[in-house]
Amino acid sequence: LTLGDGLFETILARDGASLRLAAHLARLKAGAAVLGMSVPIPEAALATAMEETLSANAISDGVLRLTLTRGPARRGLLPPDRLRPTLLITAEAADGLLLSPVGAIIAVTTRRNEHSPLSRCKCINYLDNVLARIEAGKRGADEAILLNTAGNIAETAAANLFLVIEGRALTPPVADGALPGIMRAEVIGRLGAEERSLGRGDFSRASEAFITNSLAIRPLLMVDGVAIADGRPGEMTEKLRDGSHLIR
Amino acid sequence: LTLGDGLFETILARDGASLRLAAHLARLKAGAAVLGMSVPIPEAALATAMEETLSANAISDGVLRLTLTRGPARRGLLPPDRLRPTLLITAEAADGLLLSPVGAIIAVTTRRNEHSPLSRCKCINYLDNVLARIEAGKRGADEAILLNTAGNIAETAAANLFLVIEGRALTPPVADGALPGIMRAEVIGRLGAEERSLGRGDFSRASEAFITNSLAIRPLLMVDGVAIADGRPGEMTEKLRDGSHLIR
Repeated sequence: LTLGDGLFETILARDGASLRLAAHLARLKAGAAVLGMSVPIPEAALATAMEETLSANAISDGVLRLTLTRGPARRGLLPPDRLRPTLLITAEAADGLLLSPVGAIIAVTTRRNEHSPLSRCKCINYLDNVLARIEAGKRGADEAILLNTAGNIAETAAANLFLVIEGRALTPPVADGALPGIMRAEVIGRLGAEERSLGRGDFSRASEAFITNSLAIRPLLMVDGVAIADGRPGEMTEKLRDGSHLIR
Repeated sequence: LTLGDGLFETILARDGASLRLAAHLARLKAGAAVLGMSVPIPEAALATAMEETLSANAISDGVLRLTLTRGPARRGLLPPDRLRPTLLITAEAADGLLLSPVGAIIAVTTRRNEHSPLSRCKCINYLDNVLARIEAGKRGADEAILLNTAGNIAETAAANLFLVIEGRALTPPVADGALPGIMRAEVIGRLGAEERSLGRGDFSRASEAFITNSLAIRPLLMVDGVAIADGRPGEMTEKLRDGSHLIR
């Protein structure tokens, strides 16, 4: 934890059960492989522990957070020969979920590093995203869009981003620094969306836009003070939200 | 800690006192400003707490680690209105200090993001450095050199880097992703070293090379299996080490 040497998953819970659990655990496993470690307990035991965390906290609809770190080690960067990974499970009721439409800024504070394999992992090195989100708040916006080091759109501070251009849903590829979001993959599948590099100039070409993460699909109505199309939630976005088994 | 939202300092202690404390605390303060927070206790109280940590652990010569995080918060990226920062102080005896010459690789796993203000802060988002250091171990080297996203040399996984070319000590500028190391600043001052962008081609031009952090100045003798000059510690490096008040 003191080096940011770990991963996390944010998982929606409904009626006491985790949604899209298999996909979350597959991503956790893939991230662990990038870090050179493995998930220390079997999938079924992890699922049980998560359910128990929900019930112990009397939460039926809410959010689980799974945090996996490489575990204790002596000073220095090299992990010990024998790892003792740390696994944290926390749960929170869904009261704080944000589902409303979003106005965003394009962050100038920082950029996402598409040259790091960590841009493809949900790791706990989240400070660039925190800084971007703070910048959004200061500039009166709900969310921050992160560009990568080449100036292409990567994602937002806490979500993936989709633009609808010429009737087609487009989203930045993972190679551009987009986190491979669970909801992103689901939306790509459902809409037949295309992964394509996008720049800041593409917002003016979009007929609608939305952002996705495991907790919500939210219409993106404005970027840097300029409305996207007519500034109202788009048809594709609304249809998507209706069918996504999210807490509304 | 679960978002990597914090800073740290690694400080050498000798005879029960912290070395270069003012410089470390100045950097901590500068980093806190980048994060939009402040160091929560006065400098003198912090110095006292560090001394007490050393004496409580009966450590005279060793290493202190100061970790400052933004503190507890609810789920989400936005900090609470009222911060309660967490400050950790740990101490370790100096037995594990590595002072020997170094063979390094140029990391291919990841790159340092010079576009992020975090490249100028000693923040606990250290996973890129951990991955680079693990790569070095796998490739039989002691340290990893990190390039930035433009392909210039930034630093090593846990130190700054100096090359001596045509009799002049050179080190990558902070703008290229070099952490503004405390020892780096001291060495720049003592040698009149120049901050200059360096590429991988510059290793073959160097008559000697060394790496610096607050714990050690170590000769760099080899990069990707190729010796620097005659592959022996250089004169400037040896002279520097003699005068640096490090544990030898």
